[in-house]
Amino acid sequence: MNVNCLLFNDFETLDLFGPVEVFGKVEGYNINYYSINGGNIISAQNAQINTENVNAIGAGGILIIPGGKGTRKLVHDNEFIQKLKYAAEKSEWCLTVCTGSALLAKTGLLDNRNATSNKIAFEWVKSNGKNVNWKYTARWVADKKYYTSSGISAGIDMSLGFIFDRFGEEKVNQISNMMEYEWKNDKDHDPFAV
Amino acid sequence: MNVNCLLFNDFETLDLFGPVEVFGKVEGYNINYYSINGGNIISAQNAQINTENVNAIGAGGILIIPGGKGTRKLVHDNEFIQKLKYAAEKSEWCLTVCTGSALLAKTGLLDNRNATSNKIAFEWVKSNGKNVNWKYTARWVADKKYYTSSGISAGIDMSLGFIFDRFGEEKVNQISNMMEYEWKNDKDHDPFAV
Repeated sequence: MNVNCLLFNDFETLDLFGPVEVFGKVEGYNINYYSINGGNIISAQNAQINTENVNAIGAGGILIIPGGKGTRKLVHDNEFIQKLKYAAEKSEWCLTVCTGSALLAKTGLLDNRNATSNKIAFEWVKSNGKNVNWKYTARWVADKKYYTSSGISAGIDMSLGFIFDRFGEEKVNQISNMMEYEWKNDKDHDPFAV
Repeated sequence: MNVNCLLFNDFETLDLFGPVEVFGKVEGYNINYYSINGGNIISAQNAQINTENVNAIGAGGILIIPGGKGTRKLVHDNEFIQKLKYAAEKSEWCLTVCTGSALLAKTGLLDNRNATSNKIAFEWVKSNGKNVNWKYTARWVADKKYYTSSGISAGIDMSLGFIFDRFGEEKVNQISNMMEYEWKNDKDHDPFAV
């Protein structure tokens, strides 16, 4: 199974590398890094990461879309949104973290689906997907092939939730023990929704 | 304040990017990425990250040393250990995550100090620092300028603990809210020590 991460400048570092850590612990899952033009991408925390061109993403696999301040410009970038839409459509699963759901919403693929996002940026995210059933109080939301999570660290819990849905509790316990991480296993419990 | 991350091939991705996320939320903290020869470093989860040469690290600042399977070779790499020792000595603070403490222990700088590490690899880590006061049950340990944490995700809690020690509770709450992360604030509570 390919885990295909779609990076862009000023993405939020942990949005991406939380899920990457979880999926990197699944045998047979291969993590790959892409961006709109390939080459070096710089995260909001100054990490410079080498990527392949998004056109090289094959069919199937898991697409991961982080959030971060880079999303504020990208929701207005039609080329990016169209390429994201194409990549999301051909993926078997599509997961967003934080304001990554604003980018996915902009493609229209979340229309009439349940989804969530970062709590601080929630109103802005909603404005990018007026036909999405936004759930404010949720650690993460799963709707068919689309998983969306709340802010930053919620991506770790969503990814473990995804593993639970595919492989069951034993696998989740194995991975979270290796990570020394206490999984927040209730997707509807959201202490940051106030 | 410079936050200087020392990378090496097969470092554990979240060991580094958990702390990076926390310190990236402190105004005036600048995150920089280094390795023994500079250039591209590939994490154990296949992220290729661009780095500067370790010789370019200036005096002061916070040095962060992740763990991961790459440490198994590096404890026997005298050039790496000597350069790490020099970088750690001239840093104001030195923080390790997971088996990063085995590398720091190998320099001798942890001798007669309290420290902890990953629970699964604990015996191996101990063998690399026979004069260190290893604490098995600890989420993280602070001893003067040296902070050492347990496995992978514990680096996030240690980093928030470091912020607490420098700036107090309000700052920690601000950062953990932005990260939508519930801080494990008790450094002596370790559910993975069994």
